[in-house]
Amino acid sequence: MSGLSVTFEAIRASFGPLCVGIDPSRDSLHSWGLPDTPDGALEMSLGVIDAASGRVGIVKPQVGYFERFGAEGFRALESVFSAARTAGLQIIADVKRGDIGSTMEGYAEAWLGDGPLGSDAMTVSPYQGFGALEPAFVAAEARGSVAFVLCATSNIDAATVQAARHGDRTLPAEIALLARERSNNDYTVGLVVGATRSLAESGLTEENLVESLILSPGFGAQGAALGDLTSIFGRASSWVIPSVSRSVLRGGPDGVATAIESHLAELGR
Amino acid sequence: MSGLSVTFEAIRASFGPLCVGIDPSRDSLHSWGLPDTPDGALEMSLGVIDAASGRVGIVKPQVGYFERFGAEGFRALESVFSAARTAGLQIIADVKRGDIGSTMEGYAEAWLGDGPLGSDAMTVSPYQGFGALEPAFVAAEARGSVAFVLCATSNIDAATVQAARHGDRTLPAEIALLARERSNNDYTVGLVVGATRSLAESGLTEENLVESLILSPGFGAQGAALGDLTSIFGRASSWVIPSVSRSVLRGGPDGVATAIESHLAELGR
Repeated sequence: MSGLSVTFEAIRASFGPLCVGIDPSRDSLHSWGLPDTPDGALEMSLGVIDAASGRVGIVKPQVGYFERFGAEGFRALESVFSAARTAGLQIIADVKRGDIGSTMEGYAEAWLGDGPLGSDAMTVSPYQGFGALEPAFVAAEARGSVAFVLCATSNIDAATVQAARHGDRTLPAEIALLARERSNNDYTVGLVVGATRSLAESGLTEENLVESLILSPGFGAQGAALGDLTSIFGRASSWVIPSVSRSVLRGGPDGVATAIESHLAELGR
Repeated sequence: MSGLSVTFEAIRASFGPLCVGIDPSRDSLHSWGLPDTPDGALEMSLGVIDAASGRVGIVKPQVGYFERFGAEGFRALESVFSAARTAGLQIIADVKRGDIGSTMEGYAEAWLGDGPLGSDAMTVSPYQGFGALEPAFVAAEARGSVAFVLCATSNIDAATVQAARHGDRTLPAEIALLARERSNNDYTVGLVVGATRSLAESGLTEENLVESLILSPGFGAQGAALGDLTSIFGRASSWVIPSVSRSVLRGGPDGVATAIESHLAELGR
């Protein structure tokens, strides 16, 4: 048992909760002077891991940026995972997979199993129903990992789905309720809640979120300030893992460590 | 322009709309006497492609069954795609990807681009909002391909999300409406609508669906009969692509061609 569900509190005590994204997009690679290839993506990722090591406890590779290269991209991603493990970093695989039955089992096996892409946590998408994600929850339980379920994301397009309601509850509130019901007083089932809109705008309350691990993108370049984490999440803030990506990458290879330290200072560390 | 958006009507005229799934799950590989490895998955897939060739026009690899093997699984999948193209089959990549911004662009580049996994259609998941999928729609338009948006799936767990409402519309009805608004009188934006529950149970009408391409799983082993396609989809049935997977695979390598022909007979061909 070595995944993020069982290690989170120790990581928070040692490094704080900050998570550094590994996002080798075309634009990021360009700003680093690297080719838009699997090798370029790997080189950038190794630079981020090097700067993250010893400063934070968690990294989050954004898998879409590797997948665009097909099998060669996945080969680079396997090398990234291997380097992150060697550096003692926990890995959140940001994949947003969601399916049913044995297909969902396949995705859980990929990202929460014993293979080369086995991670400490993965993100999952609930459009086909919260219960359809059960294979990921079972795999996370077996490994001490976390399945972070998309709940309230802060992109402007989200409302066409996330503003839908079950009676007096918004869809994000329904997902948060189901996550709490599914939890066995552990962190197996987490939530993804963006930081650039208030909880109230998504129909969520602090009480919906308390004691669930919360992966929260939207800090840094996307607009939310790490110093505002407590005012955004209130009593739930102790369980929030804020994630920063572009704001760390945009200074190029020589600026990553400084950018991470600046974000740690914003968190009061 | 060679994707499913521009070729569908010709395929329907030549072969009918049937789509054959390529699902090398652990159980399917076992029943075929093949190892649960990337090589086993490739061998099963080539057997399905061989039987599908000349009998149907469309195959649908279920990517989760390949992804569980990591980069080696993606390597096998690239060989599957290459064989399907050589056999003249259109490929629907069943990946159910969904994200925002440049990450969604990455997924669209992977599955609707010029790389080794470039497909004639992909499935996408709208939890982060219909508009967040725009990079897939743009990529599909450029290539004559289709982005099939998850709309109403027929698994029993689906209601925790899909029964949510925007006022008097269910979420599937909202997605169908947005898909029609986005379409430019072409098939770029399709819908995934399961066949094992009635349209009314999902809050959909035939009118919601008419003139959108509809990928419909749930036939064969999952319980819906191909002979009932017209009674399920009514006036929308001309645009339905029914998909069969387990019922085609369970007879083992020697039974695939016969099972496909039996399904074609159910469709009246």
